[in-house]
Amino acid sequence: MAESFSTLPLRVNPDRMLDSFTQLAFIAATADGGVNRPTFSDGHLAARKWFKEEIEKSGLEFRTDGAGNHSAFLPASVIGSGQQAPLAKTLLLGSHLDSVPNGGRFDGALGVMAALEVLKTVKENRINLKSRTEPSRSVNLEAIDFTDEEGTLVGLLGSAALAGHLSQKDLASPRGGRDQLVEGMARAGLSDASMLSAARPKDSLAGYLELHIEQGKRLERAGIDIGIVSAIVGIWSYRLSFIGRADHAGSTTMDDRLDASLGASAFTLAAREMVMMGFPDCVVNVGKMDFAPGAFNIVPARADLALEFRSPDEDEFNRLDAALLELARKEAGRFGLEMRIEFLGKHSPSMMNETMQTAFATACDDLGLTHVSLSSGAGHDGQSLADLCPVGMIFVPSVDGASHSPREFTKWDDCVNGANVLLQAVLRLAG
Amino acid sequence: MAESFSTLPLRVNPDRMLDSFTQLAFIAATADGGVNRPTFSDGHLAARKWFKEEIEKSGLEFRTDGAGNHSAFLPASVIGSGQQAPLAKTLLLGSHLDSVPNGGRFDGALGVMAALEVLKTVKENRINLKSRTEPSRSVNLEAIDFTDEEGTLVGLLGSAALAGHLSQKDLASPRGGRDQLVEGMARAGLSDASMLSAARPKDSLAGYLELHIEQGKRLERAGIDIGIVSAIVGIWSYRLSFIGRADHAGSTTMDDRLDASLGASAFTLAAREMVMMGFPDCVVNVGKMDFAPGAFNIVPARADLALEFRSPDEDEFNRLDAALLELARKEAGRFGLEMRIEFLGKHSPSMMNETMQTAFATACDDLGLTHVSLSSGAGHDGQSLADLCPVGMIFVPSVDGASHSPREFTKWDDCVNGANVLLQAVLRLAG
Repeated sequence: MAESFSTLPLRVNPDRMLDSFTQLAFIAATADGGVNRPTFSDGHLAARKWFKEEIEKSGLEFRTDGAGNHSAFLPASVIGSGQQAPLAKTLLLGSHLDSVPNGGRFDGALGVMAALEVLKTVKENRINLKSRTEPSRSVNLEAIDFTDEEGTLVGLLGSAALAGHLSQKDLASPRGGRDQLVEGMARAGLSDASMLSAARPKDSLAGYLELHIEQGKRLERAGIDIGIVSAIVGIWSYRLSFIGRADHAGSTTMDDRLDASLGASAFTLAAREMVMMGFPDCVVNVGKMDFAPGAFNIVPARADLALEFRSPDEDEFNRLDAALLELARKEAGRFGLEMRIEFLGKHSPSMMNETMQTAFATACDDLGLTHVSLSSGAGHDGQSLADLCPVGMIFVPSVDGASHSPREFTKWDDCVNGANVLLQAVLRLAG
Repeated sequence: MAESFSTLPLRVNPDRMLDSFTQLAFIAATADGGVNRPTFSDGHLAARKWFKEEIEKSGLEFRTDGAGNHSAFLPASVIGSGQQAPLAKTLLLGSHLDSVPNGGRFDGALGVMAALEVLKTVKENRINLKSRTEPSRSVNLEAIDFTDEEGTLVGLLGSAALAGHLSQKDLASPRGGRDQLVEGMARAGLSDASMLSAARPKDSLAGYLELHIEQGKRLERAGIDIGIVSAIVGIWSYRLSFIGRADHAGSTTMDDRLDASLGASAFTLAAREMVMMGFPDCVVNVGKMDFAPGAFNIVPARADLALEFRSPDEDEFNRLDAALLELARKEAGRFGLEMRIEFLGKHSPSMMNETMQTAFATACDDLGLTHVSLSSGAGHDGQSLADLCPVGMIFVPSVDGASHSPREFTKWDDCVNGANVLLQAVLRLAG
């Protein structure tokens, strides 16, 4: 199809990007079209190894840090005057290669592949990037794969480490369990100490830009090409334990039981009702429920729930938090159960940088793409970095809104659109 | 304390029995006073090994079969004329050494230790056992530990194999999972073929007697020493799967979800209500609930429930079965979920033999112990044997009714009473 506008603005190479994306999608692929790459699983380690080799094949510099973040690095000096650029800041692009268990092949992977493609395009066009606000400074480009975005172990782990937010306490009681964290770090040659060493100086980054799939239906329903993220919702997570008594499930009469399953079930139903009726901007999920001892013929003595809830607003968060914990205690009491409440962590809602949002919007306009401002219901690494440097984020449409599932899909044209907007935003911010 | 009655009737040696019971209770003991001996776990294998050595130390013959049942055997010929006793039948006493996960130290173990003590007492008193109904036949005594009574793998496995009820189908889809069964059998040197070879001829057994803890509160509340079991309830078990859709738990709005946790939770609550209101003689248990994929940030696509229900009456069973499955489908439909229903197995209610009940009752009377007739809400190996030979069973009081729990406790005097009633019933049936 002949294009009616000039060959400018510069675009990425869509075939090269598709080739990389497809190779990556085959690593730890599942039969139903998804991928299974929980952090530091065999599949995830294979994807990391492939990414390192892909970077080296591209003639880009491979870098890693104590948090296991992997990067392609394009120093300003290489494409600039040939001299060292001691004052250079780095403009970071990226996303993550880990997946939820049996997840989709776009979540995270698209953003990393688009970032890498932007670096390849800038390199082959020998574009000299300079800071728009401080023209004496050159700008390095870096395409990063952040460790454990999805939270198999900790959640936003690599970005929190890079931003200097990670604490010994986060590592001591991670939501995936300490044993799993220790084992995972060992598999990747990492440790608590290395994790805590990955923080970067506050003035080293010019900004962070991320392309991601929307994981919702808003763009698809509105028929819009690009979503420019205004804010990322916050996430709070808890482990709630309802505690009753193990009894023989045959010889103990129904009214003599202290059955932990009842409190857990009642809470799960009531929490959904409460959020739908009273907190329309929020969501809640009970993603996991474990009964102990966990046998057919024993009344459950304990039910552990994995609880997560999200809100774009800090005040609403505090109200929802109080309401959910009160509800849990009420449902426990109704069945004679005790409660244990373990707070696992929170991420506050994060505002995206205005300049970044404007750069994305003008990039869309120049590329002839429609765009809309929206908030992100999903958490992303950008929220870790938001007080370290300016952060911007864009979404491309998810077919049927599906995500964290093998059904996850984004049309390839939309993926390429996103990469072109990312490239153009880079040029606008440091062209 | 001086006893006011004659030293007759014969009694077991309570100190010797306590010594054995205590040694056994230390094997795979948990810190809270229970034991953890799921079938063919390290702890269970250690208990089996100890039992074999204890038999050999007692000068009794150790026997085993293709189902891994372990026995102490006291041939009639040894205590009789010294001649072979080709027409001898065997009077089987016993219970099981496996436990539920983190169970108590009395469930099963007491019955095996009491059976062994009865053999030791008969042996040291050189009592010649003969059939009451066919005085030309001698009677062998056997104290058996049945494999996998609790159902870690199959449930009533060893007794079903011995009774010839076990089928290839039972082994192909066991409720604990086929992989776990294969692995467990391998650990004990067993196989499908050996399991199916363990059936005994129908006329080889004179009967089966079992002492067990009540695992309920009826005896304790009534202040009665011995419960004589009239019937054992039947048990049906299913795996119910509620199937929705995996979605991102942040970016998918609450009303766009097909959340499997909701059907599972609603069924768990409603099943209890239904049984309490409409089926007062029955019990139901959801002992396990597994969500898949099982992550904080994914809407559960699937919830698998371990469902078990019990009734003393076959007609009521059929009504309850239909009502529970209809309820599951209704709750699934309410949340837009699909259902998968996997029938895992059933045991019909079993009537205990009248002659055995009478023998127990007169034994109690002669020993000055109070007794009551009751049904067993728990399943027991006797139900496997009920159409192979006459079966009788007695209960001793459980403190606070606790069982399948480390809180399980029976006063030692009650344990000894039970063993004495078992011994006296043996002498009445084959004295």
